[in-house]
Amino acid sequence: MEFSEHIKTANVEDVVLQQPLHPPSRGTLCITGHHLLFSHREEQDSSGQVLLLLRNIDAIEKSVENLSGYLGPFTNVVNSKRASGSSGTIIIKCKDLFVLQLDIPGMEQCLNIAQSIETLSCLDCVADMYPFFYRPCDAIFCDQWGLSNPEKHYTEMEELLLSTSLRHWRQDTRGRTPPTISCRGLPNWNHDVTGWSHGDAGFVLPRMQSGFGHSVQHERWRLSTVNRDYSVCVSYPTAVIVPKEISDDTLKKVAKFRQGGRFPVLCYYHRKNGMVIMRSGQPLTGANRKRCKEDERLLQAVIEDSDKGYIIDMRSAQQAQQARMTGGGFESKSCYNSWRRLHRHMERGKTLQESLIKLVEACADKSHNMGRWLSKLENSKWLSHVQTALSTAGLLVECLERDGHSVLIHDSDGIDSTLLVSTLAQLIMDPSCRTLEGFLGLLEREFVQAGHPFQQRCAHSAFSHARLQQESPVFLLMLDCVWQIWRQFPLALGFSEALLLRLATEAYASNYGTFLSNSDMERHAAQVKDKTQCLFRALLKPREREQYTNQLYEHTELAIWPSVHPQSLQLWRGFFLRWTQQTRHLEEVQQEIRNMVIESGKTALSF
Amino acid sequence: MEFSEHIKTANVEDVVLQQPLHPPSRGTLCITGHHLLFSHREEQDSSGQVLLLLRNIDAIEKSVENLSGYLGPFTNVVNSKRASGSSGTIIIKCKDLFVLQLDIPGMEQCLNIAQSIETLSCLDCVADMYPFFYRPCDAIFCDQWGLSNPEKHYTEMEELLLSTSLRHWRQDTRGRTPPTISCRGLPNWNHDVTGWSHGDAGFVLPRMQSGFGHSVQHERWRLSTVNRDYSVCVSYPTAVIVPKEISDDTLKKVAKFRQGGRFPVLCYYHRKNGMVIMRSGQPLTGANRKRCKEDERLLQAVIEDSDKGYIIDMRSAQQAQQARMTGGGFESKSCYNSWRRLHRHMERGKTLQESLIKLVEACADKSHNMGRWLSKLENSKWLSHVQTALSTAGLLVECLERDGHSVLIHDSDGIDSTLLVSTLAQLIMDPSCRTLEGFLGLLEREFVQAGHPFQQRCAHSAFSHARLQQESPVFLLMLDCVWQIWRQFPLALGFSEALLLRLATEAYASNYGTFLSNSDMERHAAQVKDKTQCLFRALLKPREREQYTNQLYEHTELAIWPSVHPQSLQLWRGFFLRWTQQTRHLEEVQQEIRNMVIESGKTALSF
Repeated sequence: MEFSEHIKTANVEDVVLQQPLHPPSRGTLCITGHHLLFSHREEQDSSGQVLLLLRNIDAIEKSVENLSGYLGPFTNVVNSKRASGSSGTIIIKCKDLFVLQLDIPGMEQCLNIAQSIETLSCLDCVADMYPFFYRPCDAIFCDQWGLSNPEKHYTEMEELLLSTSLRHWRQDTRGRTPPTISCRGLPNWNHDVTGWSHGDAGFVLPRMQSGFGHSVQHERWRLSTVNRDYSVCVSYPTAVIVPKEISDDTLKKVAKFRQGGRFPVLCYYHRKNGMVIMRSGQPLTGANRKRCKEDERLLQAVIEDSDKGYIIDMRSAQQAQQARMTGGGFESKSCYNSWRRLHRHMERGKTLQESLIKLVEACADKSHNMGRWLSKLENSKWLSHVQTALSTAGLLVECLERDGHSVLIHDSDGIDSTLLVSTLAQLIMDPSCRTLEGFLGLLEREFVQAGHPFQQRCAHSAFSHARLQQESPVFLLMLDCVWQIWRQFPLALGFSEALLLRLATEAYASNYGTFLSNSDMERHAAQVKDKTQCLFRALLKPREREQYTNQLYEHTELAIWPSVHPQSLQLWRGFFLRWTQQTRHLEEVQQEIRNMVIESGKTALSF
Repeated sequence: MEFSEHIKTANVEDVVLQQPLHPPSRGTLCITGHHLLFSHREEQDSSGQVLLLLRNIDAIEKSVENLSGYLGPFTNVVNSKRASGSSGTIIIKCKDLFVLQLDIPGMEQCLNIAQSIETLSCLDCVADMYPFFYRPCDAIFCDQWGLSNPEKHYTEMEELLLSTSLRHWRQDTRGRTPPTISCRGLPNWNHDVTGWSHGDAGFVLPRMQSGFGHSVQHERWRLSTVNRDYSVCVSYPTAVIVPKEISDDTLKKVAKFRQGGRFPVLCYYHRKNGMVIMRSGQPLTGANRKRCKEDERLLQAVIEDSDKGYIIDMRSAQQAQQARMTGGGFESKSCYNSWRRLHRHMERGKTLQESLIKLVEACADKSHNMGRWLSKLENSKWLSHVQTALSTAGLLVECLERDGHSVLIHDSDGIDSTLLVSTLAQLIMDPSCRTLEGFLGLLEREFVQAGHPFQQRCAHSAFSHARLQQESPVFLLMLDCVWQIWRQFPLALGFSEALLLRLATEAYASNYGTFLSNSDMERHAAQVKDKTQCLFRALLKPREREQYTNQLYEHTELAIWPSVHPQSLQLWRGFFLRWTQQTRHLEEVQQEIRNMVIESGKTALSF
């Protein structure tokens, strides 16, 4: 695509920029294929510039006026140039809620600029987007693009299983003769048991049959590449973890019975008790209550000897019933009698998007009426969605950790609230998800690889007048929920609010390829991994890492149960009132704490 | 008074205590004249004790039941003792919003305990209250009781005036010959001007007539002891600052024309421009529009050569009009033509108390409904009161600092919202009020000495079923407003949220005499200064100081204008949701920051 076609006016002098927290300033406006650049007249260095990704622009409002009247006694060269025609004003509303105003001399120039922005901010073709052109000075193109992949995740899980088994075995050997049966399926580690205490890897992985609870789990899962060419499920990655006894052929049959081909896959293995979180799309039982023996067998294989499992269906019972009319459905008690179904209704899609729009509108309300603000806040229902998401995640953790049973979660298509809740649950339960790396890895696994359609969901934010289609702030809602947890447990998360803010921006407009496209398949087709930079990797570089580390972080093994009382949940002011003085002051505090930590030499400890 | 008369049961064994954030525990309950003491059975050290001032108890609920039924198979000695009679439960609700439950074996014992608490928590006589019995190991009884007094305040103001004059003079001498006229009224400092640059105090204080704005102010004020025996105004201290040209006889006449005898007195001198804040009661113009020439002359003397002053009347114009029917009134334009009257309605008294009750009720609501919570929060109107208080204070600062004119503030009696707003305005404007000492000094001046009737206002808090009389959470509202400022400017205040919480508790029930009685006169009569300890002095002792210092404090000379947009104001969770897990976590953060500062050696700098 030739961007220059869409740029009739590339440069305008003498533009006045008005932005929050700054006095108006005069300078030069420049439009490129992907950016809007404003350079202050007085300041020559980059601190005097505003660089905005056009993709970040959600809506623009333009107004032009003819200046044929009195021009005042102080008409200088610049003003007379302006007077020669007319002038225009463009208000730019960004997806990260930043709003700026440009007063542009010359009606035609103003209209040209507006048109360029309108076109270039909504490019549809992935390959035209900025990540494909972004080349930072320290760009790396190597095999390793993201932080992990399903294969690595599986290996890690296997290692976790091994170490768990080993720990159990160690505890056990205190009392009785150690078992000497070697570990099947892991041929390299088949050593004599006595070697364990002397050598590095010289130990036998015991295969315990009883009294060790979940220590046999490592034989129960396998990595399947049935979706290697994305033919079974378009939104899954090429490899997924499934029960070992379920063959690829069975998976293909199950995929046909689940919405979007999303057959149940393992997304979390809980090392404390060996229970798992599975996720999927809804079963396509339809009006005729169709069954799928393979699906039933797969779920039975998940719980194996355990007496039961839980299905958390993120629709109300009534909605699940209604879904049958359009080919969807739910797991009936008669067919899945080891599974107990719990319904927790969570809004998705349009309702969530409308809630965001109402909230942002309320936040921008200039009225000084406290009652009106609180009632608009209530009316937006955003905090109710936060509450529901957190309490559903809490329910999941309760089933898995407290009650000690595996859980399958899904809504209808399994690519929105399913991922949201599974992410939150893992953050609550698992300390390894609470470090900076761990959290980014979690997002990569549960949102990017798991097939959250970022391109559709984040096409527009709260300001756009475009008709809503697939937009929905699921990812933003997830970040808000994480913020609530962070606020309630300020020491338990290894990353800072600044990271959440950064991610909220990046999901909508980014230099990086991480949130491009709607699925692994699309990213593969667009060669995203070959041609763009990875955000998560960039965030872990030392300078960025320092910025996004929670300096107060203290590791805890415990689950961090967030309170979901309405009184405990707050508006995420850092995001929704981001461009106000107040938020700026809070940033100062973070900076101050960072400085203090660096002074006190704690930095060395926290890395 | 013999406290023992009211204690029929002093000790009960085997009581079960239930309190927030702790598991139930069993131990011994003990009632003394001023305290409720619970000692856990297992723990012998003081960490296993709960010590509660009876004065802190706002309401108790008791229920007794006969235990004649099945006692279960595990009836041990203790249980059978309980079974012999019956048992009772007392729920204790404290003024600092702490709620605890005691399960007491024996109906009679339970009723005795309840009755003791009911009587002893509401003692009317000041001399019976605990501060008269409190003797900490480091008790000091010396002449200096509080942090300051009106005399000292006046001296400080004079010094401020001198230094300001000097600064102006220094700036001036750069350009022209220094004036050599000596300073009148300050004979000791009458030196030759040349000595200034060489010696220590060898300088002449110039008396500048023009081009120096406010440098002549130091001759305009005097300390009057007209109220030395409290005969002119019962709620004023013995000394007040008034315009120099107004004689004590005139003041006596003005006092008769102002509600409660509260003639206009200076409460703040703004060193940047020499303008002042005056406060008073409403003028008693009555239905006949009575005038008082002396009052008019006093106010004229306040603005002197300045073209005008502002009166901020904290009632709506309509309320001020209505006040005339009951003998009150307002300063009419015709009689006070140099003064511009601004009306800002602020709720006081019963309305404020009811708002607090509604808010605390909302906070205790266990329902999980987000909409209900937000609507109850709105309905309590507490945040609206916070907003009004802060915006009225902002208005005052605008008049004084931006517009550069003196201000008189009053409501009807001038002992509630008047003090609240004048306190906040000083905090916003003056960096010297933002240190720990400065803030405590401000409270001492503007609340304690200025005659806020603490005993009446803080007799009960949000739980009491007693019929509302004089109760009103004006002081608490002020603390909430200060918290909002602290939150918006986390680096600008030298004290921490913990100080505000401590003050909120102490105002209602205290070991110290600071908040006893309703006025200086009453404190004098009760010999509070001779027989009790001073809270403000205690808070400045090293160990406490460390606890209440804001470790992130950075001095700024600038006014700190709080945003009063509804979006910028928040529920003070630290106070209203104090006894929840969440608040506990935030305290951990504060502790962590404190530790870090101590590590980084910053402590030395901040003192």
